[in-house]
Amino acid sequence: MTSQPKINPERLRALLDGINTFGAPDRSGGFNRVGFSDADIAVRDWFAHEMEKDGLKVSRDGANSLFGRFGPDTGASVMVGSHLDTVVDGGAFDGSLGVAVALECVRAMKEAGVTPKVPVEVVATSEEEGRFGGMLGSQAIAGLVTRDWLEQAADADGVLLTDAMRKQGLEPSALLNAARKKGSVKAFLELHIEQGPVLEREKLPVGLPEGATGVINLSVTLKGTANHSGTTPMDMRADAFAGLAEIATQIPAMIERTGSEIARITIGKVELLPNHPHTIPGEARFSVIIRDSSEEVMKGLNTLFGHVVSAVAGQHGLTFEIEEKSCIPPVAFDEALVSMLDEEAQRLGFAARRMISGAGHDAQTMMAFCPSAMIFVPSRDGISHAPEEHSEWADIEKGAELMLAALMRLAA
Amino acid sequence: MTSQPKINPERLRALLDGINTFGAPDRSGGFNRVGFSDADIAVRDWFAHEMEKDGLKVSRDGANSLFGRFGPDTGASVMVGSHLDTVVDGGAFDGSLGVAVALECVRAMKEAGVTPKVPVEVVATSEEEGRFGGMLGSQAIAGLVTRDWLEQAADADGVLLTDAMRKQGLEPSALLNAARKKGSVKAFLELHIEQGPVLEREKLPVGLPEGATGVINLSVTLKGTANHSGTTPMDMRADAFAGLAEIATQIPAMIERTGSEIARITIGKVELLPNHPHTIPGEARFSVIIRDSSEEVMKGLNTLFGHVVSAVAGQHGLTFEIEEKSCIPPVAFDEALVSMLDEEAQRLGFAARRMISGAGHDAQTMMAFCPSAMIFVPSRDGISHAPEEHSEWADIEKGAELMLAALMRLAA
Repeated sequence: MTSQPKINPERLRALLDGINTFGAPDRSGGFNRVGFSDADIAVRDWFAHEMEKDGLKVSRDGANSLFGRFGPDTGASVMVGSHLDTVVDGGAFDGSLGVAVALECVRAMKEAGVTPKVPVEVVATSEEEGRFGGMLGSQAIAGLVTRDWLEQAADADGVLLTDAMRKQGLEPSALLNAARKKGSVKAFLELHIEQGPVLEREKLPVGLPEGATGVINLSVTLKGTANHSGTTPMDMRADAFAGLAEIATQIPAMIERTGSEIARITIGKVELLPNHPHTIPGEARFSVIIRDSSEEVMKGLNTLFGHVVSAVAGQHGLTFEIEEKSCIPPVAFDEALVSMLDEEAQRLGFAARRMISGAGHDAQTMMAFCPSAMIFVPSRDGISHAPEEHSEWADIEKGAELMLAALMRLAA
Repeated sequence: MTSQPKINPERLRALLDGINTFGAPDRSGGFNRVGFSDADIAVRDWFAHEMEKDGLKVSRDGANSLFGRFGPDTGASVMVGSHLDTVVDGGAFDGSLGVAVALECVRAMKEAGVTPKVPVEVVATSEEEGRFGGMLGSQAIAGLVTRDWLEQAADADGVLLTDAMRKQGLEPSALLNAARKKGSVKAFLELHIEQGPVLEREKLPVGLPEGATGVINLSVTLKGTANHSGTTPMDMRADAFAGLAEIATQIPAMIERTGSEIARITIGKVELLPNHPHTIPGEARFSVIIRDSSEEVMKGLNTLFGHVVSAVAGQHGLTFEIEEKSCIPPVAFDEALVSMLDEEAQRLGFAARRMISGAGHDAQTMMAFCPSAMIFVPSRDGISHAPEEHSEWADIEKGAELMLAALMRLAA
């Protein structure tokens, strides 16, 4: 006896609340399940037990990503989920919502008596937030982790990944065996909060990312002369901060000239030397993050930024250095999957828009391994990675219904 | 038997070298005789002994300023000197040169058999560099130190002035008795390095400050929203650093509109929150130092700066706070003394220019007590408060000859 499966909002909410009892806020106000912390290990044990109670076939890989298989024991699966780890003092929705929605979809299918023809694998990936500089769980699944990287990866405090894993009784070298066989996953779907303000502004319950922006990470140093603020006339200064300020004010014009609607340039970190009120800044070091969904646009903005730095430095009597710390190319999600999600959203009557993800997600790593796509739900005030992170349940329900419809199409 | 007194450059240089054996550079590369440090105490003992060998009548006041009297035991004196303390990792000329020149002038007068009619008092003031927030030695002489201030004054590490003095065997309350009797000093003259680039640029050996700029010290905070650099479109940002950058680029226009040739506005210290490359700055705190030789111009610039902050904050969706931390009015030196120095420079054939001091000096504190004036000698590259601080000996000799000529006119 089968009926039309339907998301149970109360059950979904209880599941998310259950996840968030691990690393729950104390004085700090944020959720703390940093990758390979005690809370990160504990939440996986609890979630594994939840999936076992639902009759799923539970397993873990060498990266400590957690899987629950529903349906046939053999054959390529449809994988659905997100991550259970958080940033330090993070929010209750980032990652965990996608994992909870994945299991709720399976529960809804089971409740309706659906027997999937294609196995559905719920996944809770490991260490997505990049404590050790990557997206460890999805990179391991996709076979992107090398032994060299594994052995030297360390967090901001200098703790080695291998030590953090061993401390939790995990054998690091097993991580290299976590790569899934090519073809063993037909599709990967991830529901995630937008972590930006676009859906909220446009009053849309659902967003459909067509891809994720690439990221160029620059470290720029301007050097001038750190002289006395009282004795040095304005026209005899080589003020590194004055140069930086001029560069920063030209960002909108740079995007206007060479960028796109998606292009973003951010100066987030600034350090002046000597950083003293009475001394003209002799040196300014700052970060520049350039993002776009087109690699060509990113390169154009990078080149233009370099020209602007050079011109401004010349005008202000400064020398400059630009270090390209990293360059991650943009990723396009699987168009067939995005179109299918778009069709299902229309069928369900959910207003949705295609967009580009500005944040990094497991789904973009997974694209190197199998067709992947995402569903976004709105973030209140665009806030994420903070205790104030919130998404409305009316929107979450719609996102979850869309995920369920997609899984029914892919697996049932 | 008297002859025309003449500066002995070798003797002057040996005296300056002698001073600079105290707190001499080790690894840091700079001179360290911070007020009330062991080196600051020791250099005064050594300099007192030098003056005693020259037959001067040596005394100290309650602030540990050191005096050497040459000539009549009674009557109002002409005071000449500067300070012996340094900033942390300072240079070899700031302050010490003025003290060495003062004693060299007396030595030259003695050598020439000059018996001054008016006593000449060589002074090495105490703690001019403001470790405890003032110009302690000259403020004590001028009677400007209050008991309340004395009891709470502390350095940047929280060390109380009273504790620092007691540690050196000095009784803090004696400082309140250091005020000299009004009329007991006819004039105060100070030779100092310019600490700026103007004289060097104009190839002049001597500068004659007509006054010192006032200083308004502002602390400004801009508050926006610290969102994700990838997910937040450019037009939905409230970027506190973008606001700061726009304010900073408007400084030249502000000075053009309301300032003067002397006006200087400096943003020397900047702190962003959270100061993370991937996060739009939610908060920017920065220092603003406004200087001019006219109190009216300073007030005009302060008002205009406030208007610009308010307008830029409005455009960028930021809130702002401006705290006026201090406002020191400008000081004009004694016109009769400056004119006398100008005449003597012309008589000696030294190219000199009148100017405004952008740095603070004992002479401006002393103006509250007696007619005061200064002689500047050029600073190489305008650098001061650093080990690279340097003045050419050809210029120093001219500055010292001018000081000697002035003392001969005032005292002989």
